[in-house]
Amino acid sequence: MMQARGRLIGLGVGPGDPELITVKALRLLRESPVVAYFVAKGKKGNAFGIIEAHLQDVQTLMPLVYPVTTEALPAPLSYEKVISDFYDESSLHIAAHLNAGRDVAVICEGDPFFYGSYMYLHDRLAERYEAQVIPGVCSMLGGASVLGAPLVYRNQSLSVLSGVLSHEDLKRKLADADAAVIMKLGRNFHKVREVLTELGMAGRALYVERATMANQKIVPLDQVDPMSSPYFSLIIVPGDRWQG
Amino acid sequence: MMQARGRLIGLGVGPGDPELITVKALRLLRESPVVAYFVAKGKKGNAFGIIEAHLQDVQTLMPLVYPVTTEALPAPLSYEKVISDFYDESSLHIAAHLNAGRDVAVICEGDPFFYGSYMYLHDRLAERYEAQVIPGVCSMLGGASVLGAPLVYRNQSLSVLSGVLSHEDLKRKLADADAAVIMKLGRNFHKVREVLTELGMAGRALYVERATMANQKIVPLDQVDPMSSPYFSLIIVPGDRWQG
Repeated sequence: MMQARGRLIGLGVGPGDPELITVKALRLLRESPVVAYFVAKGKKGNAFGIIEAHLQDVQTLMPLVYPVTTEALPAPLSYEKVISDFYDESSLHIAAHLNAGRDVAVICEGDPFFYGSYMYLHDRLAERYEAQVIPGVCSMLGGASVLGAPLVYRNQSLSVLSGVLSHEDLKRKLADADAAVIMKLGRNFHKVREVLTELGMAGRALYVERATMANQKIVPLDQVDPMSSPYFSLIIVPGDRWQG
Repeated sequence: MMQARGRLIGLGVGPGDPELITVKALRLLRESPVVAYFVAKGKKGNAFGIIEAHLQDVQTLMPLVYPVTTEALPAPLSYEKVISDFYDESSLHIAAHLNAGRDVAVICEGDPFFYGSYMYLHDRLAERYEAQVIPGVCSMLGGASVLGAPLVYRNQSLSVLSGVLSHEDLKRKLADADAAVIMKLGRNFHKVREVLTELGMAGRALYVERATMANQKIVPLDQVDPMSSPYFSLIIVPGDRWQG
């Protein structure tokens, strides 16, 4: 008899506070014989930290360790090639468990389909295996909640932008936004603040590092040190109050 | 001795599937002596349906019944005035409980700060009372998960738009978006599909009604009957695959 194949599960575990995991994600996490997670070399990983307390000895842990920590690699290495090979290889390891009939839960900080590395596994495996995605509370909504900042009212538009965009692109997109969230700050912080200032939006903008995590930090935008802004920080420009 | 005041709690309960509530929201829901929720006249309410099974007899229920079901009112009535008065009045009812030292949880479908009616209570009460917001899984991520559609890759931008926008505004904003979500379809569906078709984006667009709810319905975009698209439907235009 052919062995039934396991399911691939993209499991959103929320923005950081371990209590912000959904009941469904928690149930599927506990039911999954294999738990995979992306992690930087030598780190524990944010997603892993969120769910660590719920793991049981019988579960197989599968850390997927990023081969690089920066996108700027010396020639002839190409980030795209290195990372693509890494996702190919990770998919093979996961497929081995799926073929053996074991479900694999890939835990994802925030939501799996909202800038999550899980997407690259999904794209490689979901056509051949049953895949289920459990949505999670994404970082920008975790950020809005701790900032006490209603994000978008009524018929306002929300623009979610990466800090990596050029000065010019950021400026054009922000100028046309009712409300905005800018992610992936880190080394891009200085440029982003400059654009917000040029557009007269800096006064409305709010900044938070590691929202809902134990080491969360809220700093007024004009007091942020551009050299120390971490990757897991974001800026929120809330929509104008409707009926304030 | 002065009575300690109660806390206002904006409680995101997720997109529809009752299991997509967070552990934190569930705990605070159970601990709240008063549970308030917005609802249309004669309806049970989506948010209420999500959490109904967890309520206990000792909890006080406070339905906040919308005075109107449409924004188009006959003169001299103004939607803005009628709805503003309603939020004022609802805030007074809630404040009475807070003054008496009782916490009030306002349950919100999806996330409280992502197009939630809770925002209008928050704006009226959060300066005078302690307010805590528990973020939830928002409808667009619920939608992406059931559609199996990775939403935004890497440094792509996401535009969240209301179907109420004019043909021209929708077209300009969609043309500049890497990935997009269009909410509040209902009677706007026909216009939105037209714009997507004009931009050559219709082939990439996915449609879902009541994502993650028991009566969820996924329909190919070109087969949707524009007359029957409900308010709780959305269109997702996923970002182009990176490393497909």
